[in-house]
Amino acid sequence: MDLQPIDPVAETADAAAHALADVAPAVRAAALVAFADALTAHADELVALAMEETGLAEARLRGELKRTAVQLRLFAETVLDGAYLDVRIDRADPDFALGPRPDVRSGNEPIGPVLNFAAGNFPFAFSVAGGDTAAALAAGNPVVVKAHPGHPRLAARTAEIGAAALEGAGLPAGTLQLVEGVETGVAMLKHPLIKAASFTGSLKGGRHLADIAAARPAPIPFYGELGSLNPVFATAAAIAARGPEFASGLAASVGGSAGQLCTKPGLVFLPAGHGLDAAIAAAAQTGEHRMLDPRIADGYLRRREAILASGGVRLLAEGSARTDARAQGWVTPTIAALALEDFRAEPEAFLEECFGPIALLVETPAGTDYADLLDEFFEGELTVAVHRADGDDVSRLVRAAARHAGRVLFDGWPTGVAVTPAMQHGGPWPATTLGGTSVGTAAVARFVRAVAYQNAPQDALPPALRDDNPWGVPQRIAPAGESATWGDRARA
Amino acid sequence: MDLQPIDPVAETADAAAHALADVAPAVRAAALVAFADALTAHADELVALAMEETGLAEARLRGELKRTAVQLRLFAETVLDGAYLDVRIDRADPDFALGPRPDVRSGNEPIGPVLNFAAGNFPFAFSVAGGDTAAALAAGNPVVVKAHPGHPRLAARTAEIGAAALEGAGLPAGTLQLVEGVETGVAMLKHPLIKAASFTGSLKGGRHLADIAAARPAPIPFYGELGSLNPVFATAAAIAARGPEFASGLAASVGGSAGQLCTKPGLVFLPAGHGLDAAIAAAAQTGEHRMLDPRIADGYLRRREAILASGGVRLLAEGSARTDARAQGWVTPTIAALALEDFRAEPEAFLEECFGPIALLVETPAGTDYADLLDEFFEGELTVAVHRADGDDVSRLVRAAARHAGRVLFDGWPTGVAVTPAMQHGGPWPATTLGGTSVGTAAVARFVRAVAYQNAPQDALPPALRDDNPWGVPQRIAPAGESATWGDRARA
Repeated sequence: MDLQPIDPVAETADAAAHALADVAPAVRAAALVAFADALTAHADELVALAMEETGLAEARLRGELKRTAVQLRLFAETVLDGAYLDVRIDRADPDFALGPRPDVRSGNEPIGPVLNFAAGNFPFAFSVAGGDTAAALAAGNPVVVKAHPGHPRLAARTAEIGAAALEGAGLPAGTLQLVEGVETGVAMLKHPLIKAASFTGSLKGGRHLADIAAARPAPIPFYGELGSLNPVFATAAAIAARGPEFASGLAASVGGSAGQLCTKPGLVFLPAGHGLDAAIAAAAQTGEHRMLDPRIADGYLRRREAILASGGVRLLAEGSARTDARAQGWVTPTIAALALEDFRAEPEAFLEECFGPIALLVETPAGTDYADLLDEFFEGELTVAVHRADGDDVSRLVRAAARHAGRVLFDGWPTGVAVTPAMQHGGPWPATTLGGTSVGTAAVARFVRAVAYQNAPQDALPPALRDDNPWGVPQRIAPAGESATWGDRARA
Repeated sequence: MDLQPIDPVAETADAAAHALADVAPAVRAAALVAFADALTAHADELVALAMEETGLAEARLRGELKRTAVQLRLFAETVLDGAYLDVRIDRADPDFALGPRPDVRSGNEPIGPVLNFAAGNFPFAFSVAGGDTAAALAAGNPVVVKAHPGHPRLAARTAEIGAAALEGAGLPAGTLQLVEGVETGVAMLKHPLIKAASFTGSLKGGRHLADIAAARPAPIPFYGELGSLNPVFATAAAIAARGPEFASGLAASVGGSAGQLCTKPGLVFLPAGHGLDAAIAAAAQTGEHRMLDPRIADGYLRRREAILASGGVRLLAEGSARTDARAQGWVTPTIAALALEDFRAEPEAFLEECFGPIALLVETPAGTDYADLLDEFFEGELTVAVHRADGDDVSRLVRAAARHAGRVLFDGWPTGVAVTPAMQHGGPWPATTLGGTSVGTAAVARFVRAVAYQNAPQDALPPALRDDNPWGVPQRIAPAGESATWGDRARA
């Protein structure tokens, strides 16, 4: 059913954008909560559909649905809080340093209809009701979701439940719409009424869409999260202090959800002679898990084979990697190791994300500087993990990690991203196309733009910028007269 | 002297970026003030150079230099204030709604070396020492400025003075560098060590560079400010109440700096029968002003001629538009008018920015809805101005203006952008390539990216994220336990 007529969808979204501008934030927040409640009320039906379409386990999917509902509630708080509006008020100032200054006030407004390309590996948290949708709705924008082909019935049902909940709570019809098919998605991305897009998926697919967004007659921001290798760096002291715990944590993080997570740790740098071979082999013995779909299984099997055939690679846990009669993949963790010198001999063989439950240990000789390795091999990552023990000086490593990643984590594993205001799920290219985060409340900043009002009468101002501040949002007020002293305290 | 060797410049900038990471914000702020002081100390020399190279008047240039220094001081305040770091601290929470939550803290860090394409029409405020440079330095990034060919000696001298001031104040060598030539600029834009770019100039030039930035193997954000038509909408009541003041304000805003401002009002919608012909003709009688360079003069003369030759156009003030023996342009304001029906007959003849002192009045029949005109003819503008009188209901017009512009101003003229924290100088495409603002303290947000730290020991955290908060920056702290109530108040 490719190529739905897209004009009606875009025009409906545009009309909804105009109508949403008249909806008070309290109503928008309540609608996000209604969406969350509706998901929770339909949990049994939705989880059953998701299990059937994705092969993911029930416990994982129930947890993901709960996470998705909590995320919608967090964004309701963000809307009510109003800090994301970044309201600034500079009162008129006859004594301004450059001559009389008008009254200038600015605040963020919705960017316009957002197109969200759903991901396949998180049928709730990064799909129809996921973080990008929640953030765009919180900012006051209608959303068109391009369904992921891996869970079409779940996508349709989630959209139906979501649209009913949002409209039932007073948001305009067309606030949430769904389209299907690759060509329809591309046509929608080119539509002049679409003002921003988000995406979670592969580097190749994301780059293709980012290029389309940039080449439009009127370019739009394209926020793509394109995956990551998520390197882990462990010091000798960390391994000595917590070797068995490290081995079991690694296997669990690599194997969870069949390794089909953009934060799966793909490369682990640790000192040669770590002595963890047996512990890792034992920890990697888990039950088989189905992969999402035959295409992903095929890609995993090929890449895994190529990695294992590379020079110097030694298997610690071979793992299962087979397909059944319906071409579905069934897997357990594969963990291998090689010496740094072999890694360095052909790094390009290992520096492409392998989507599935495989990790490669890179064994480093004594005296290796991990900070230098980060600069040598890595560009942009979602995460860098540092495992260290008290007494280790990791300051250079941490600074290098911050140059190359959106999240630096200590003594833990990157999978299981906390949905919390400070979370940063993004990173320099190619982790993301444009920076920003797709988890955490800062995600809303991708879908707003600032508008300033100069010498506006109070009744012509948006409520958030008025002196009486009816929404009770934070207002940063620059008092008249302060410009005379700008810079003085820096010199003092 | 095209095609300087660019690798050494980029490598110097990259090394400076690493070194800048170790510089305390107080030192960075003091360096911005030192830069401002150095400009002020060299004002006579710099203004004389600028007059010679640009043809702009002394008073305008002295004011612009002062504005540029004040802007650097404002950004010093921004650095010390630290709100732009957007520090968020979510403490570990064993009772988190989705299971135990780690300690997560995030804050903005410098994006990396910034390439700034200087503008020709503001040899101080949007050139080597201008707003983009100040914002990028404030964020903690080294800057490479691509000099504008219209004022090469001024650019070189400003860079020399600026680099000495910054280094003298303790910033690393190479924090501010200058390159020259179109091909060098393009090569630098493609250099992998450049992490963001800014630009002020034409739609055509900006689009060309934006496409290059987007097509890099590792794309970078390109913040272009590409100009604007800055439509003005005046109600009948406004004209009745303040006709003569309106006429003189218009002529001054159109003619100032020979109309070579991106905020020059190019189109003025007002009721037919306004009766301002004589007042505008009189107000437009000003002394001749030189244009910036022969290329700009040639472009202005051609476009002006085409506009005046269009069907239905009536001259109110013909203005001067001549070139001298050295092909320099000499101009006074040209103001013409035509009926809305003639404008609508071939809008494309008038909807391209004409860089120079010309404005077109579009005379509208009674009952015209300006909000509809905005949606019909305009896409993205830097500014929309609304002239109204008490009793006029302009709410629909203001909301339409906010959809299409970064700044909505009342009963005034868009030229003379106030350098103040709330200012928004940007707008939807094609006013800018990516949104954001190039004036006001929010400009710094274009040159940072957020990094989160998870379960970091205190001594591995950047100072701004530490519990003891040695820089005294605002920290948004989410207390443990609050997740249980997320969304509750939205439902209440």
